Amino acid sequence: MKLYVTDLSPNSRRVLAVMHQLGLAGETEVQKFNLVEGQHRSEDFREINPNMKVPVLVDGDFKLWEANPIMIYMSDRQGAEEFCPSDSATRIEILRWISWEVQHFNRAIGDITWETVAKQFFNMGEPDAEKIKAGQENFRRFAAVLEEHLADRDFILGDKPTVADFAVGSHSALALYPQSQVPLLEFPKVLAWFQRLETLPAWAKTAPQAPAEAAE
Amino acid sequence: MKLYVTDLSPNSRRVLAVMHQLGLAGETEVQKFNLVEGQHRSEDFREINPNMKVPVLVDGDFKLWEANPIMIYMSDRQGAEEFCPSDSATRIEILRWISWEVQHFNRAIGDITWETVAKQFFNMGEPDAEKIKAGQENFRRFAAVLEEHLADRDFILGDKPTVADFAVGSHSALALYPQSQVPLLEFPKVLAWFQRLETLPAWAKTAPQAPAEAAE
Repeated sequence: MKLYVTDLSPNSRRVLAVMHQLGLAGETEVQKFNLVEGQHRSEDFREINPNMKVPVLVDGDFKLWEANPIMIYMSDRQGAEEFCPSDSATRIEILRWISWEVQHFNRAIGDITWETVAKQFFNMGEPDAEKIKAGQENFRRFAAVLEEHLADRDFILGDKPTVADFAVGSHSALALYPQSQVPLLEFPKVLAWFQRLETLPAWAKTAPQAPAEAAE
Repeated sequence: MKLYVTDLSPNSRRVLAVMHQLGLAGETEVQKFNLVEGQHRSEDFREINPNMKVPVLVDGDFKLWEANPIMIYMSDRQGAEEFCPSDSATRIEILRWISWEVQHFNRAIGDITWETVAKQFFNMGEPDAEKIKAGQENFRRFAAVLEEHLADRDFILGDKPTVADFAVGSHSALALYPQSQVPLLEFPKVLAWFQRLETLPAWAKTAPQAPAEAAE
């Protein structure tokens, strides 16, 4: 298998973390693109993903774009029943949470940290205080739902990490950066869950450098 | 079963269309909220969806939020193998397209039509020409991918409509409104596919009123 990814991207990190979690690192070639330099803008890569985006998984003739489907595909391929249960009731729970994170929770974190982290890293101008505030309001609305859900669970589906945590938690590094302005301290269960994720070997192996270090 | 929805929402329309497609209208109570009047902001509804959003499906004790998981749940409950095939290869294709529409295609349509349709309907101020232009650029990028995919297919997974079409096509009415400014004419296969969807009985039954009529 081959994975096309980029640095400092929560969508790339989540698929790399699943690769490690499932013990697939040995049989997976990882191709890292520098998107700022436009390494993904080639006709060869357009054949692999016409959207010209990473991550992409290539498994023989099969080309799969979009991070969450890649994670589920790799899990099913390995028969990883504990990490990504295949019974239909649990599958629906997984779909609920990956829809929720894409639409609400991680969109809010992304909106905030685009202003507070990414813009500075990519020299895209000053943070917009109004957008940060709007993102924080959205974050509070949806983090409250996760906070309540985690009141009696260590992980999203129960006492063990699953693909749902790897999706919902994919923005942990961005959220935890000291400059992020994501109001995590107001949600101690969410904060503890992020930290719990970061201690997993698969998560630790994919920790991004801090933006300041990466920029040097 | 009970479905909580609202008018003029592509996320509500897609679940209602699936309800009709699967022949579930007779056994499903539909509760329509007027979100502008805040009918969803009650403690009773918070118990049903702590995110305070529609659509939500309630099936006995089971409460499911997020439109795409609701569509897949209803399909699996009915054993609708043709509309939502359950083999793992096809399931991954479905997940690919519902991730893609949420992240890219329908996000672009939503960004444009927020400015050109929704703002006027809700009296939220003047359209922002720069945001329309940015949305149109994103739409062109991703519509080109769908245009190529539909070159030799009538529907996303082949010659019959499936849950993937109901998800990716959920914004058809917004895109087709004459005032939408979604550059559909540049993508004739996508336009024809939207029109093909609108002729399906389940789609026709859920057609929204035009905003001008609805506002009267």
